[in-house]
Amino acid sequence: MPELRKDPIIGRWVIISTERGRRPSSFSSVSRRDSVSMCPFCPGHEDATPPEIMAYREAGSEPNQPGWTLRVIPNKYPALIVEGGLNREPKGLYDKMAGIGAHEVIIETADHACDIVDMTVEQVRNILWIYRERMTDLERDGRLKYILLFKNHGEAAGASLEHAHSQLIATPIIPKRVAEELEGAKRYYDFKERCIYCDIVRQELSDKERIVADFDAFLTIQPFAPRFPFETWLVPKSHQSSFVEMSDADYTTLARCLKDILLRLKLALNDPPFNYIIHTRPVSKEYHHYYHWHIEIIPKLTKVAGFEWGSGFYINPTSPEDAAGFLRKVLDSDVADQISSEAAGRE
Amino acid sequence: MPELRKDPIIGRWVIISTERGRRPSSFSSVSRRDSVSMCPFCPGHEDATPPEIMAYREAGSEPNQPGWTLRVIPNKYPALIVEGGLNREPKGLYDKMAGIGAHEVIIETADHACDIVDMTVEQVRNILWIYRERMTDLERDGRLKYILLFKNHGEAAGASLEHAHSQLIATPIIPKRVAEELEGAKRYYDFKERCIYCDIVRQELSDKERIVADFDAFLTIQPFAPRFPFETWLVPKSHQSSFVEMSDADYTTLARCLKDILLRLKLALNDPPFNYIIHTRPVSKEYHHYYHWHIEIIPKLTKVAGFEWGSGFYINPTSPEDAAGFLRKVLDSDVADQISSEAAGRE
Repeated sequence: MPELRKDPIIGRWVIISTERGRRPSSFSSVSRRDSVSMCPFCPGHEDATPPEIMAYREAGSEPNQPGWTLRVIPNKYPALIVEGGLNREPKGLYDKMAGIGAHEVIIETADHACDIVDMTVEQVRNILWIYRERMTDLERDGRLKYILLFKNHGEAAGASLEHAHSQLIATPIIPKRVAEELEGAKRYYDFKERCIYCDIVRQELSDKERIVADFDAFLTIQPFAPRFPFETWLVPKSHQSSFVEMSDADYTTLARCLKDILLRLKLALNDPPFNYIIHTRPVSKEYHHYYHWHIEIIPKLTKVAGFEWGSGFYINPTSPEDAAGFLRKVLDSDVADQISSEAAGRE
Repeated sequence: MPELRKDPIIGRWVIISTERGRRPSSFSSVSRRDSVSMCPFCPGHEDATPPEIMAYREAGSEPNQPGWTLRVIPNKYPALIVEGGLNREPKGLYDKMAGIGAHEVIIETADHACDIVDMTVEQVRNILWIYRERMTDLERDGRLKYILLFKNHGEAAGASLEHAHSQLIATPIIPKRVAEELEGAKRYYDFKERCIYCDIVRQELSDKERIVADFDAFLTIQPFAPRFPFETWLVPKSHQSSFVEMSDADYTTLARCLKDILLRLKLALNDPPFNYIIHTRPVSKEYHHYYHWHIEIIPKLTKVAGFEWGSGFYINPTSPEDAAGFLRKVLDSDVADQISSEAAGRE
């Protein structure tokens, strides 16, 4: 049974999940890359995963059989589990609770060799739609406060299987980083009566130098104070607090925007390992006025991890203005135009 | 000129230091491990580094010549620079200031092949003493609010040269993680009128299951809610807010304690890359009552970095109780006794 424990000083919760099974001897750097014949995410290997939660599949095909294009399964080694009560309790001056939540895997394609940048805009949009479906479904569970959707690409970014997939972790607490954003955004809103992210969008549109790409409803920027080189944000231009409340057409635009930036990063940085994380408001609507959902993409380029983890202090050798200039130029304008118009007829 | 920039939402400052020179094309993983003949930290290569700030050296030997056993130099590629004013200013809704501070390197030994675990307790104590000397000196600069002392060991932990060294970064702001500890400790102190770290020491001595080693004045523990497997804290048992205010004898005990845990981690985890960071109070004494200095050691064993960076949410596959049990057993008791008594006659 996983356990949630709270750091008594800074209030951060961590998941202690020993079922995931790491003994001291298992911390070697053996690659777990699987060939297609061994890949548990490939069609024909559905029995290698827990039974699917949902899938987009050909009409007439059976659950847990081939014929799917997108498939959602429970994580075989879940960090949190669905069944049970929270049982929050003290342990001396410490706090802990049961590791209740959900941990799902979204298999993004049936094609082992296909990465998100190789997909059509429609395929990417379908991934975003299935994110929305899972998030909307889990928001109904009253025990869960936050639904975290993220993708690890590449072994150095934490992906243990190379077949393209994302993950969802639903938690009974609000993750620390999200809580900090909520507090900071609320402080600004209390002072200015405006959303800070809306003001950031305004300033970036005026400064221009940190903009990578401008899609109708979304802006791709390098943030003013990035921790990492080429850290990138996708921000909706109008005020929206939740990823799940967009119009269907906006998901198509977002798919274009996401494909565009991932292709730029791939070309600029030679297919870097990366993570993206959807920063959306917690399940509760109370945060709506001052929070503004966005996606953060972090290419893993530097190795200065431990020091930063320890101090919260980051040294970034690339200015966001330089990174934005580089990313603007890396994609031929005709390719960019093609992404920009692709699937436009389908909206 | 490096620049300090503040994230407008969560208030984290980052250093944008482009002089350190990373263009997109330079983010390859080429090893910069140098042989002894090329190592800028080896005796005889003193002209490959900026002139030394201080050194422990043989009587009669000249500065910037061989004959030293410990040497402190400015970082050749500093993240922050000493000269200038802070010039804090707004940029629209953003904040920035000049990258003023200090960035020094402590070369821990003249012997290229010697790591801290191979040293005598006396040598380790001398390293701790030179940390104290540099911190005490820099605390006199009124522009500096915090002095961060850390060590990266191994390439995966961010060390770009293998010759044993530590680093010091003095900053005009309090790093975010330190600020969070100060706030959390103050909140507890305001409520309980006791230091939370003193209470943690009491509870750990009573629970016993997370103790790795118990030296007279210091306790080596696995914290209750660790982010990473085998994350380790060294905590003084009595209330002390600053690393620089210990008695000379305490540095010897701390040297024993540090050598003991680094040897345990090396044996348990096959010489893992690691970082250690001294968490001490800011320069100002106002934090004395509720802050309690300690050292945090983070072995770099897992790769799940980007997701954690993005969410502030950590999944740890090893419980601190298991890790402590393993680390207690890994060192033969006669070796532990030897470290424990080594240099005892010198106090």
